[in-house]
Amino acid sequence: MDNFYAPGKNHLFVPGPVNIPDQVIRAMNRNNEDYRSPAIPAMTKTLLEDVKKIFKTTTGTPFLIPTTGTGAWESALTNTLSPGDRTVSFLIGQFSLLWIDQQQRLNFNVDVVESEWGQGAKLDVLESKIASDTAHTIKAICIVHNETATGVTNNLAKVRQILDSYRHPALLIVDGVSSICALDFRMDEWGVDVAITGSQKALSLPTGIGIVVASPKAIEASKTAKSLRVFFDWKDYLKFYQLGTYWPYTPSIHLLYGLRAALDLIFEEGLENVIARHNRLGTATRLAVEAWGLKNCTQKEEWHSDTVTAVVVPSYIDSSEIVRRAWKRYNLSLGLGLNKVAGKVFRIGHLGNLNELQLLGCLAGVEMILQDVGYPVKLGSGVAAASAYFKNTIPLIPSRI
Amino acid sequence: MDNFYAPGKNHLFVPGPVNIPDQVIRAMNRNNEDYRSPAIPAMTKTLLEDVKKIFKTTTGTPFLIPTTGTGAWESALTNTLSPGDRTVSFLIGQFSLLWIDQQQRLNFNVDVVESEWGQGAKLDVLESKIASDTAHTIKAICIVHNETATGVTNNLAKVRQILDSYRHPALLIVDGVSSICALDFRMDEWGVDVAITGSQKALSLPTGIGIVVASPKAIEASKTAKSLRVFFDWKDYLKFYQLGTYWPYTPSIHLLYGLRAALDLIFEEGLENVIARHNRLGTATRLAVEAWGLKNCTQKEEWHSDTVTAVVVPSYIDSSEIVRRAWKRYNLSLGLGLNKVAGKVFRIGHLGNLNELQLLGCLAGVEMILQDVGYPVKLGSGVAAASAYFKNTIPLIPSRI
Amino acid sequence: MDNFYAPGKNHLFVPGPVNIPDQVIRAMNRNNEDYRSPAIPAMTKTLLEDVKKIFKTTTGTPFLIPTTGTGAWESALTNTLSPGDRTVSFLIGQFSLLWIDQQQRLNFNVDVVESEWGQGAKLDVLESKIASDTAHTIKAICIVHNETATGVTNNLAKVRQILDSYRHPALLIVDGVSSICALDFRMDEWGVDVAITGSQKALSLPTGIGIVVASPKAIEASKTAKSLRVFFDWKDYLKFYQLGTYWPYTPSIHLLYGLRAALDLIFEEGLENVIARHNRLGTATRLAVEAWGLKNCTQKEEWHSDTVTAVVVPSYIDSSEIVRRAWKRYNLSLGLGLNKVAGKVFRIGHLGNLNELQLLGCLAGVEMILQDVGYPVKLGSGVAAASAYFKNTIPLIPSRI
Amino acid sequence: MDNFYAPGKNHLFVPGPVNIPDQVIRAMNRNNEDYRSPAIPAMTKTLLEDVKKIFKTTTGTPFLIPTTGTGAWESALTNTLSPGDRTVSFLIGQFSLLWIDQQQRLNFNVDVVESEWGQGAKLDVLESKIASDTAHTIKAICIVHNETATGVTNNLAKVRQILDSYRHPALLIVDGVSSICALDFRMDEWGVDVAITGSQKALSLPTGIGIVVASPKAIEASKTAKSLRVFFDWKDYLKFYQLGTYWPYTPSIHLLYGLRAALDLIFEEGLENVIARHNRLGTATRLAVEAWGLKNCTQKEEWHSDTVTAVVVPSYIDSSEIVRRAWKRYNLSLGLGLNKVAGKVFRIGHLGNLNELQLLGCLAGVEMILQDVGYPVKLGSGVAAASAYFKNTIPLIPSRI
Repeated sequence: MDNFYAPGKNHLFVPGPVNIPDQVIRAMNRNNEDYRSPAIPAMTKTLLEDVKKIFKTTTGTPFLIPTTGTGAWESALTNTLSPGDRTVSFLIGQFSLLWIDQQQRLNFNVDVVESEWGQGAKLDVLESKIASDTAHTIKAICIVHNETATGVTNNLAKVRQILDSYRHPALLIVDGVSSICALDFRMDEWGVDVAITGSQKALSLPTGIGIVVASPKAIEASKTAKSLRVFFDWKDYLKFYQLGTYWPYTPSIHLLYGLRAALDLIFEEGLENVIARHNRLGTATRLAVEAWGLKNCTQKEEWHSDTVTAVVVPSYIDSSEIVRRAWKRYNLSLGLGLNKVAGKVFRIGHLGNLNELQLLGCLAGVEMILQDVGYPVKLGSGVAAASAYFKNTIPLIPSRI
Repeated sequence: MDNFYAPGKNHLFVPGPVNIPDQVIRAMNRNNEDYRSPAIPAMTKTLLEDVKKIFKTTTGTPFLIPTTGTGAWESALTNTLSPGDRTVSFLIGQFSLLWIDQQQRLNFNVDVVESEWGQGAKLDVLESKIASDTAHTIKAICIVHNETATGVTNNLAKVRQILDSYRHPALLIVDGVSSICALDFRMDEWGVDVAITGSQKALSLPTGIGIVVASPKAIEASKTAKSLRVFFDWKDYLKFYQLGTYWPYTPSIHLLYGLRAALDLIFEEGLENVIARHNRLGTATRLAVEAWGLKNCTQKEEWHSDTVTAVVVPSYIDSSEIVRRAWKRYNLSLGLGLNKVAGKVFRIGHLGNLNELQLLGCLAGVEMILQDVGYPVKLGSGVAAASAYFKNTIPLIPSRI
Repeated sequence: MDNFYAPGKNHLFVPGPVNIPDQVIRAMNRNNEDYRSPAIPAMTKTLLEDVKKIFKTTTGTPFLIPTTGTGAWESALTNTLSPGDRTVSFLIGQFSLLWIDQQQRLNFNVDVVESEWGQGAKLDVLESKIASDTAHTIKAICIVHNETATGVTNNLAKVRQILDSYRHPALLIVDGVSSICALDFRMDEWGVDVAITGSQKALSLPTGIGIVVASPKAIEASKTAKSLRVFFDWKDYLKFYQLGTYWPYTPSIHLLYGLRAALDLIFEEGLENVIARHNRLGTATRLAVEAWGLKNCTQKEEWHSDTVTAVVVPSYIDSSEIVRRAWKRYNLSLGLGLNKVAGKVFRIGHLGNLNELQLLGCLAGVEMILQDVGYPVKLGSGVAAASAYFKNTIPLIPSRI
Repeated sequence: MDNFYAPGKNHLFVPGPVNIPDQVIRAMNRNNEDYRSPAIPAMTKTLLEDVKKIFKTTTGTPFLIPTTGTGAWESALTNTLSPGDRTVSFLIGQFSLLWIDQQQRLNFNVDVVESEWGQGAKLDVLESKIASDTAHTIKAICIVHNETATGVTNNLAKVRQILDSYRHPALLIVDGVSSICALDFRMDEWGVDVAITGSQKALSLPTGIGIVVASPKAIEASKTAKSLRVFFDWKDYLKFYQLGTYWPYTPSIHLLYGLRAALDLIFEEGLENVIARHNRLGTATRLAVEAWGLKNCTQKEEWHSDTVTAVVVPSYIDSSEIVRRAWKRYNLSLGLGLNKVAGKVFRIGHLGNLNELQLLGCLAGVEMILQDVGYPVKLGSGVAAASAYFKNTIPLIPSRI
C-alpha cells in the first residue's frame, strides 16, 4: 500500500500539503464518531473560538467547510457577491490566475490587474481605480496575501489604507491559503471582510477543511448576495450555529480532532513565535539562494515570502529535472514551477510544522541536486549561509529551557 | 483531547459516519505527501478503476471530490442540468427533503412526488408523469436509493423499467449515499446516469470524499448543462485525468490511502459477501424489532432497508430520550428521529464495517434502554430473534476456514 | 500484513492480552525517543508514583521491567530468596503450576499445596504449616491472587491474617497478573511484600512491562538474597533511581507513553469504579452461565473471579471446538481450557478496558456457538440474565451526565 | 501527554532507540490479539524464518525474547555456559564493560582483555590465549561486534580464523546489538555460535524484543549448560516451536507485527543495500568530523563503525553541553559520552531507518552547536565534506527509477 518506498523520512518541502506534527497524526488516529452526540458540538464550539485567534479577529464568523482552498474561494465569493458584480483582482501567479478564472466562471465582472510573475500586486493601479470609482461600482477587492507559485507576499495593510483613504466600501476578500498562521495576518486591524485558508497549509493538517472567516460586513452582504450557492452557503451554517449543533452536514470527525490538536500546538508555541519561526526559515532560505548565486523569483525584498521561495534556475537547466531528481534520489519533495514559470523555477516550501535542521537538510539536498544538473554550486555554501543566520536567531525551545 | 470518556469501545450505530476498519485507520495514520509526485497519480489511477467496481459500472467516469454527500448531490445536479430544468424528485424523508431543497435553491423546476414518511417513492405517480411527458420536459429523475431517515429502499430497477418502457430520455440521478457498497446497486444494468455516495458510509472511511460516477450520457449532458459550477465542475477533473496528474486541486492524501485500504478489504471480503452481510444485519435487526413488539417505520417489506432501521416507539415515549440514554449510560450511539419523525423513531444504523456480534451487543443495549424509558420489552427477546436468524445464516469467515 | 481478515471488530475475550483503549493506542503511535533526554525521566517519575496507586501502596518500590509476567515472577523470587529457601506455594491451576515449576527450577524448596482445579488455595493447610513452622523455615508464601486458568480468586486478606496471627515473618509474594487494577487489591493493608502484574492485563496495554512492586521488607530481603540475577536485579534499578535517570537499560518508549495514558484513563474513571465495573462484568457473566445451565469451573462463590470465567462444558462437547468456532465464524476470541481442564472448559475473559454491551455481544455469540456444538441452550437466555442484572447496576457514565 | 514540545520533527541521532519507519509505526497501531489464535503462530513462523536472513544463517535457531539487549546477553550466556566456565571477553567501552559485569555476576570466570577506549578488541592477545589453551579451558569468546560507546567495530572473521587455526572449540558469542542488520554480519560463514541484537537498533523498532540466534553447536551446549535460567531458557521456546504454538509466554503482538513490517522493508530495500547505506552514512559522518578538525574516538580506520561515531571534543569543552544544547535549541538528540569518555565525546548514531538528508540536517546542527560551545568550526564545512561524498555515492532510489 506504500509504493515507491525509500528508506528514512520523506523530506516534504512543497508549499502544501505540509508536514503534520506527530501529535496531530495521533489525534486523528481514531474511529468515526456520531457527530450529533454532545461531544462534537462541544469541541466545535472551542474550535470556532480558537480559529478566530489565528485570523486575529474577534468580530469575524468562522466557517469550517469540508472542502479545499478552491471551495473556500467559492464560498467567499458566492456568499458576498452577485453575478455581474465588479471585482478588482490581481494576477501575479498561478494561484491568483486560478482564482480569477473562478471569479470569471462565477460571472463576476473581473477587473484584472496583472503583474509580471515575481512581482506583487500593483497597488498603485488599485489606488487609481479606487480613486476614480466614485460610483462604487467596485464591489470587492480580491487579493492573495501570498502567491504560492512565485513566493510573493502582498501588503494588505496598504490595500486597506487605499480603501480607507477613499472611503470606498468595497469588500476586501483575501486568499490567505499560504499565509494565515504563518505570516503576519490581522483580519480586524486590516479590515479584511473575508479571509480564507486551507487545513493543509500553515495549520499542518491533511487537506479537507476550507476555513472561511467573514466580517460582520461580509455577513451582512451575504443576506443580499444573489450568487447561487447551496453547499457553500453560509446561511445553513449560521442556522446550525444557532441551534448549537453546528453542522448542516457531516463534518470530518478526524479533521476536527486534528484541528483541535493543531491549534493547541500553535498556542503552545505561541502564534507570534510561529510567525517568527517562519520568518527565520524564509530568511535563511533566501540567504542560501543568494549564496548559491541564484535568483529569487520574487523581484523585491518587500514581497519576499516567508512560506515559500521560488528559485530561478539558469536558462540551461530545466527546473522540473531538479524536482524529479530530488524525489528519485534524495527522498526530497520540492515544488514544481507552474504555468509561466514552469521549467524556470523550483519551489522550496518552508511552511507549517517545520524546524531549522529540517530546512538545512533540504538545502544540503538542493545543493547536491544543483550540481547533479550541472549548476556549479559550492556544496555547503547555502547551508553555511543559512546556519550562520540561524545560529544568531534561533531561540532556546521554551519548554526545554 | 477526548472529552466525555467512557470505558470500552464506543458502540457506533448511527447510519453514518460508520465504523472504520482498523486496517483503514492504520492506512491513514501518516504524514502528508506531495500529491504532484508520481506516487499519488499512480494510486489514484487504481482508485478510479476500483471505485467503478463497487458501482458496478464499466462505462462510468468516477470523480472523487473533496466534499460531503451534500456536495456530491450538487455536483451531480449542476453538471447535468440547466436552471429551469424540470426534475421529478421523491420526498420520502429528511434526506430526500434536503436534496429537493437543494434542487429548488439551484433553480430547477422540481416536480415533487411526496410519500408518507415510511413509504417508498411513488413509482406509479412517476409512471403516469413519464407516460404523459411526451414532450420530454422532464430532464431528470432524482431519487434516493435508500432514505436514511426512515430506512426505506426504493426500487431502482423499476424506475429504469418505467423510463425504458416509455423510451423517456430523462437522466436517472441516484443518491446512493446510504446504499452503494452495502445494498445491491447496479449502475450499468439499471441505466443510472449519475450515482453518488460519501466516504463515511458503506465505504467505512472518514467523511471527506463525495464520490460521483457519471454515465457517458451524463458526461455528454455536462457539456451543455448551463448550471453554474466551478468547484464541482467535472470539466476540471476530466482535464487533469487526461494529463495523468488527476487532481485539479489538492486531494486528501489520507483519504486516498484510506480508500485504497477500504477497497482492498471490500474486495477481500467480496462485494457480494458485503451485500449479503448487510442483508443479514438488516434482517436480524428487523426480527429483533418485531420481537420487541415495535413497529418498523418502513411500512412495507419491499422497502425494507438493509443499512438502517428506523424503529417507531409508542407515543408515550420520546425517542430522543432513548438516544440520549444510549450515549449516557451504555456508550452506544444511535440515530435520532429527524424532522417529521423526530421523537417518534430512533434509528439503528447497520452499515459499513460491522459484524454480527457487534449488532447483538447493540440490540441488547437497546432492550435495556427500552425498559429504562418504560417500554415493557422482554430482555433478550430481540437478541434471541436476531441470533436465531444469524445462527442459520452466518457463514464461516472465508479466510479462517 | 493482516492475515485472516474478517469484517468488523474482533471481539477479544481472552483473559489477556486484552483490549487496549483507543486513547492508549493513540498515545503509543509514535517514533522512538532518546530515553536519556530529560523527557523520559520526567515521565518515568510520574509513572512510578502513579503505579503505586493502583497497587494501593505508599511504601512500596515499583519496578517497570521490560519483560512479561513470567519475568516478573522471576524478578520477585530471585531478588528476595536464596537457593534452597522453603516456599509454600498453591497449585490450583495452570498459572500457579507454571509458577511453581519456575520456583523449582530456581532451586527453591517448594512446599506445594495442591487443590482440585476450580478450588481456591487451601488456606487451612497454610495455617497448619505456619502454625507448625515455629522455626520459621518457610521464607515465602507464593500465591496467585487470581488463577487465570480456572477463574479462582484467593483471599489474600486471610493469608495475611494467618501470618499475623502466628507472627510468622515469611514474605508474602503475590501474582496479581490477572487481578491488580481489576480486583480489589490492597498491597499495604494486606502486607503484601512483592506484588506483580503485567502490562497486557488489567492495565490494557500491549505485552512488555512486568510490573513488580516491593515492600520495604522485600527491598531489605533483596540485599541478602543469594539467588543469581542480573537482568532482573532490583539493585540496578535502585541505582538509576538515585541518579534520577531511572533506566539501567533501554525501556520501551512506547509502553511508557502507553502506561501514562492507561493510568490517566484509570484515574479518570476512578480505580474504585474500575473495580466495580469488573465486578459487574463478572457477575453478569456468571448469571449468563447459570442461565445456560452450565457450570462455572470455580466451585464456590467465595472464589468467583471478576476477571475471567471458566465455563465447564458437558462431557460430550470438546471445549476447544467452541473456541475454534468462535474465531472462525464470529470473529470472537475466547480462552482455551489449559492442561487438566483442556477440552473441558472454555474461558471468557472480562478484564481490562471493556464495557457491558461488548460483553453482551460476546455472550450472544457464545449462545450461538453452544447451539452449534450441540448444547441445547436457549438463545438470548444468558443475555437476558446478564442484562437484567446490568440494567439495575450500570451507572450513568460520569463524564456524560 | 507530550512534554517539552518543540516544533517540527525531532532529529533522533542517538545510537538507539532509532527512528522507526512510518510503515512500521502504522503496522503497530492496533489493538491486542489472542496470541493463541492461528494468526499469531502463522506470522511467527515467517518471522523466525526471515530473522535468520538478517543474521545470514540457515542453520541457526532464533529466539524472539520479550526483553532488551541486556536480557538477550543473559540468554546467550546462561543457555550455553555453566558457572565457573572461563570466557574471554574484551573490554573496549561501556557496553562491553556492562556485558563483562554481567558475565562476572553470572559467576563465569571472565578473562578480561582490555583495550584503551577507542581501540578494538586485542585479537593478538586472544590469539596467544587460544594458542596456549591446549586444555580448552576457554569455553567461550564473548565479543561485541560494534562497541556503541566508542564506535568501534571488531573483526569477527579474524576471531573465527584464530579459533579455527588452533582448532579451538570455544563458543563464539557475539553482541551484535548495534551491528546486525546494519553492518556486514555473517553468522554461518564466521562460525558465530550465539548472536544477539535488540529490536530498537538496526531493525528500527521500539525496544522490547531481544533477538538471540543459536548455532546447532550452541543448541547442543544448551542441553548441558548448568547456569540457572527460567525466563531466558531456550528449552521452553524449543518445546513450543515443536508444538507449533511458538510462545511459552505472551509475546507483544505489536512488536510481532512491527517486526514483520520492518523485515519487509529491509528485504524491499535489500539487505546489502541497507548495509551499503550504513556505510555511506558512516563514511560521510567521518568526513564531516575530519572537516571540523575533530578527532574520531575510534583510533584506527579498521575499527571505524558505520553505525555510530563518537566525536572527541577539545578538552576545554564539555561534550555533555553539546548534547544538552542540541536538545534544547535544535530538537536534535545526540548520544552522550559514557563512563571513561563522559564529557569527552558526543556520539552521532547513524543507524537504522535513516537517509542522507536527515544526516546532513544533523551535521548542520552539530556545526552550529560546536560554535555555540566555543569551538571554531566553519559552518557548512562538515556538510560540504559529507555531501561531496554522498553526491558520488548515493544511488537512485530503486523503486523510483
